Amino acid sequence: MPQGGSRAGRRTRERILELTLRLFNEFGEPNTTTSLIASELEISPGNLYYHYRNKDEIVTALCGEFEREMARVLAVSGGPRVEIEDIWRQMHDTFDVVWRYRFLYRDLNDILTRNRAVEVLFKRILELKGRAALLACERLCAAGEMSATRLERLALADNLVVVATYWLSYEYVRNPRELLGEAAIRRGAFQVLAIAAPHLKGRSKALFEKLAEKYLAE
Amino acid sequence: MPQGGSRAGRRTRERILELTLRLFNEFGEPNTTTSLIASELEISPGNLYYHYRNKDEIVTALCGEFEREMARVLAVSGGPRVEIEDIWRQMHDTFDVVWRYRFLYRDLNDILTRNRAVEVLFKRILELKGRAALLACERLCAAGEMSATRLERLALADNLVVVATYWLSYEYVRNPRELLGEAAIRRGAFQVLAIAAPHLKGRSKALFEKLAEKYLAE
Repeated sequence: MPQGGSRAGRRTRERILELTLRLFNEFGEPNTTTSLIASELEISPGNLYYHYRNKDEIVTALCGEFEREMARVLAVSGGPRVEIEDIWRQMHDTFDVVWRYRFLYRDLNDILTRNRAVEVLFKRILELKGRAALLACERLCAAGEMSATRLERLALADNLVVVATYWLSYEYVRNPRELLGEAAIRRGAFQVLAIAAPHLKGRSKALFEKLAEKYLAE
Repeated sequence: MPQGGSRAGRRTRERILELTLRLFNEFGEPNTTTSLIASELEISPGNLYYHYRNKDEIVTALCGEFEREMARVLAVSGGPRVEIEDIWRQMHDTFDVVWRYRFLYRDLNDILTRNRAVEVLFKRILELKGRAALLACERLCAAGEMSATRLERLALADNLVVVATYWLSYEYVRNPRELLGEAAIRRGAFQVLAIAAPHLKGRSKALFEKLAEKYLAE
């Protein structure tokens, strides 16, 4: 049954990725061995090896999933109207993806040094984020909801990306013994929006203030 | 001659730290072995071991120096007057210290995971930076040079620290094959100031615009 075998193979590969992601997030990628992965999955190391020849292949596969999810979240809908709520939601979704793949951010430079594919991927993700941030600013300006010169928008886009990318690392260094949770994501999303806030006008400004209030009440 | 021996010992320890810092910055801490350090210093591994029992002891000693330099730079002068130029200079000095110890930022989470002393140190440094950033905002507000509510100042301080701390990591991910140089530090200092810029008023605002122009002309 090659068809069934292939379907079972796909299922096993999915299970491997799902469990490895959980282990990486919990213990860190450097501390997770392929033996641990095989033993947690209750399969033989040989079976694991049949699907992925080494840990780097699993990391690369997870990075592929990460990139697909991130690209989906950062894709801008075609309409010309932009609402600050859409951008707020986009930021939350971005943080959710980062959270799902937080192991990457915890050991980012370490992984980058060892895995060339991840290095190229992260460069692409940062470019994607940078373009999405700049586009969001430009659309807000065009809609009269933001006031910022071209130079201000460029500086803003970089700062939005830096805080969105490194907020969880910052939380981790500040409280290394605490498990990061949803609250850390919300703080991150708020901090990112706070960078843009002084440039917001009209309805967007009012909405930011409402969001900030809600955020602080939580 | 215990006195002379001790002076020579201090001199050797200084040479070890100086050279190790250079090797860490160049090759990354994880890729620098004690054998490499001893061989570059043209001393025996036994002699190195006599001064530092292992690499972690050297890392901890370098972190101590890093903290002393950072605390000196972040210390605020006693006077009540605050000039935006002082804050600009303080930011440059902060980036210079970060640059001198850039190996820490490149492999930060990796080192944090392995070295408890570094973990505690970094938490302290972030607190120090956070307090310095908040104090700078409060002094600018008191001097009528900044307009920001208490909540805005708190959000601002966190964002200033995140960008100041992670700018070089961001540059490294964006251009992993390029050696970071002075230009990256200047970009970082500019980006940090750009976060505060919308809140600046009067003379500080005008000065920021002059600095931005100068920065862009470079």
